[in-house]
Amino acid sequence: MSLDILNGSATAIARAVATREVSARDLATLALEKIAAVDETLNAFTDVTAARALAEADAVDAKLAAGETLPLAGVPYAVKNLFDIEGVVTRAGSKINRDNAPAAHDATLVTRMQAAGGLLLGGLNMGEYAYDFTGENIHDGNARNPHDPGRMSGGSSGGSGTAVGAGMVPISLGSDTNGSIRVPASFCGLYGLKPTFGRLTRARTYPFVASLDHLGPFARSAEDLALVFDVLQGIDPLDPAQAARPSLPTLPELERGLDGLRVAVAGGYFRTRQMPEARAAVDLVAAALGARDEVILPEAERARAAAYVITNAESSALHLERIQTRPADYDPDTRDRFLAGAMVPAVWLTAAHRFRSWFRDEMRKLFDTVDVIIAPATPFHAPETGTKMVTLDGVEMLARANIGLFTQPISFVGLPVVAVPVWLDGAKLPIGVQVIAPAWREDIALRVARHLEVTGVCKAPVAMLAG
Amino acid sequence: MSLDILNGSATAIARAVATREVSARDLATLALEKIAAVDETLNAFTDVTAARALAEADAVDAKLAAGETLPLAGVPYAVKNLFDIEGVVTRAGSKINRDNAPAAHDATLVTRMQAAGGLLLGGLNMGEYAYDFTGENIHDGNARNPHDPGRMSGGSSGGSGTAVGAGMVPISLGSDTNGSIRVPASFCGLYGLKPTFGRLTRARTYPFVASLDHLGPFARSAEDLALVFDVLQGIDPLDPAQAARPSLPTLPELERGLDGLRVAVAGGYFRTRQMPEARAAVDLVAAALGARDEVILPEAERARAAAYVITNAESSALHLERIQTRPADYDPDTRDRFLAGAMVPAVWLTAAHRFRSWFRDEMRKLFDTVDVIIAPATPFHAPETGTKMVTLDGVEMLARANIGLFTQPISFVGLPVVAVPVWLDGAKLPIGVQVIAPAWREDIALRVARHLEVTGVCKAPVAMLAG
Repeated sequence: MSLDILNGSATAIARAVATREVSARDLATLALEKIAAVDETLNAFTDVTAARALAEADAVDAKLAAGETLPLAGVPYAVKNLFDIEGVVTRAGSKINRDNAPAAHDATLVTRMQAAGGLLLGGLNMGEYAYDFTGENIHDGNARNPHDPGRMSGGSSGGSGTAVGAGMVPISLGSDTNGSIRVPASFCGLYGLKPTFGRLTRARTYPFVASLDHLGPFARSAEDLALVFDVLQGIDPLDPAQAARPSLPTLPELERGLDGLRVAVAGGYFRTRQMPEARAAVDLVAAALGARDEVILPEAERARAAAYVITNAESSALHLERIQTRPADYDPDTRDRFLAGAMVPAVWLTAAHRFRSWFRDEMRKLFDTVDVIIAPATPFHAPETGTKMVTLDGVEMLARANIGLFTQPISFVGLPVVAVPVWLDGAKLPIGVQVIAPAWREDIALRVARHLEVTGVCKAPVAMLAG
Repeated sequence: MSLDILNGSATAIARAVATREVSARDLATLALEKIAAVDETLNAFTDVTAARALAEADAVDAKLAAGETLPLAGVPYAVKNLFDIEGVVTRAGSKINRDNAPAAHDATLVTRMQAAGGLLLGGLNMGEYAYDFTGENIHDGNARNPHDPGRMSGGSSGGSGTAVGAGMVPISLGSDTNGSIRVPASFCGLYGLKPTFGRLTRARTYPFVASLDHLGPFARSAEDLALVFDVLQGIDPLDPAQAARPSLPTLPELERGLDGLRVAVAGGYFRTRQMPEARAAVDLVAAALGARDEVILPEAERARAAAYVITNAESSALHLERIQTRPADYDPDTRDRFLAGAMVPAVWLTAAHRFRSWFRDEMRKLFDTVDVIIAPATPFHAPETGTKMVTLDGVEMLARANIGLFTQPISFVGLPVVAVPVWLDGAKLPIGVQVIAPAWREDIALRVARHLEVTGVCKAPVAMLAG
């Protein structure tokens, strides 16, 4: 078997496996070989579940032989290590959680991937307790950028970006609280979907900020993203916090093209404090979508600040006891964030939540006038590992915290976003653009991403790496 | 006209007016005369809307003459002064809010009362910004207990209790965040309904703690309570925080009696720290309902503490700017509460909300085994005005804060409650018992209250006062 099939899309793999051109076993073997070849350099995986992948592959081959239909037949995938995997300790990027017992059950989304014919290759590296935009991890080492291992993968779902970008798996699952799917998608040159807040079950995953956490997939094609998203949808009795919304299948609408959609570019806040590549990528996508108008998201700066306060305070509440009893077992940077969060006054948190309701209403009104909003995913392409400071619009500022400048105001009110990958002419690195849709309309964001894919504006090639 | 009709139930008044035995105008006049006679002593009203009541009465009489049907035809009522009344300044018990412009529109619940034929007599005294269990008010004077003007009316809806207890109006509306309907109902000997959190619109009322505030009616009969509640129900586009639940009319089910309902007494926490009258009242009601079993509400003490933290922190967020710019215009006791709340850490607030989710789930499970839970409304009957300390089970403690011992854990998770009035043999003062139902089942609590009324266990006579 050659790597060509593994480098292709999940859609193509599932079709080839379903028609028995290749076996699921072949795919599991190929993925394991690829991981063995490149992951020592890239460090995407913290746990490789080889035996499970092979057993799942054999089960898929048997089911196909018995005439079953499986939408993800033989598709290798892996999950950020905050998803429970039966028999594996759920690290959530930490040292402390390694003391926990192995998970007794799979996360619900893993169960759904398995039922659809997916092959689980393992758990993926991530920033400690998801409080990260870089993909760096002091305990497990950094997840490296597949297009340049000296650069950040983006975080906190760093390994999820690295694994798909390098072609180890065509699909990964991650989580996004303030940008943790959209940032690695941008830095690694992938399609990433952060669904509407409350859309996908979070049962049996390790939380960061319950009122902001989203789960979602990464892929190298928009079509794959829709395929996987439809598999992941559905109400889960194990997650009482999930919204009671019926699923909205996105694949049937995927090829409708723009078909009258009103697309606008986010102006003001979203056009400043960025490197030229971020602005050029948005301009390229906007031109391809015929978007000539700008819309202003009101008080975007305040939205980001409020997301900060909620993240800091609520995550500290989750860690309060541990931060007091095991401070030395945290990454010092993460520890400082949780310590700061423990001193945030409740009146700030309450004001942030109150502002959030207002901002959600304002965004709802904005979507009366447009169907899609375009904004940068990150202010710049992947920085070199360890970058501490960056100068944007002549102002020197902290690099890490400001990676989420443009993602935080959007996830803050739970809007669905597809991050799409742009390679500017002659660029050596990709950069992402956010395609933002109204709440519960993932179908719109996916349709637009698919249009950009089929028209060649966006692409997500496997990184050309030694190994 | 004699006062007999005004001293009767709202149901009887509406019937008499509908059949033209008396006119709505007569009722408005009688209520105004009664207010003029007794309110100088009792201080229930801060604003008497005489012209409006008379105009509404004439409109009701005209509508009846034209053949319209009005469920509250000619029923006098009044509202806690945190409800907007068009043309009246919404005080919310404060000095500061008196500087605001008069309200431009009625609160939605006032609009509904008017549409049903009710006659609005005015705004009622309340504890400053609703942060109160006593009915005392430093700016407007105390709302006095109609059964003994030297005693507390209970708060914060003190005037709402006083006005109905004294027979000035048969119906009033109040608000309940931690007990502010159930406490005055207990002290003034009334039926009071705190509906499920999210059931009734709060549009155009002054908030205290948005995540805990409920609005609801007071009456001297359980039947009146159901009659008014059904008028108040219904989705209001002006209140985006209201739950999207269909109305559940309660009048049609009211006379079904116990009919197989499983009734239990709240044990543990709810049987300690109380005066003999509280225990005896619960025993009397429990015996009448055939309740022999006790149920334990898990972590009730913690539920109360968490309600405290949420109340303190979130109300301080609302007042933060004012408490800094106009500290001298607050009651010093209220000011100290808001100042303390400004220093609560966000991690406490977050922990309180997390516990609340847990406690809500536990209560849901408890209601798989019973249909109704009985508990004291207050730990004692109305104390003398100005009482600072009280000794319960041998422990001396602050009187005011502990008035809400038994109401706070219930409203904390938004369960519907009818407070029913008990007069123990030979007692000179009434005391209330909480009839607690599962979420969204006000009908059950009202049915039980009605059963206690028709069997003579509970009664709410107009206070015998000079004047």
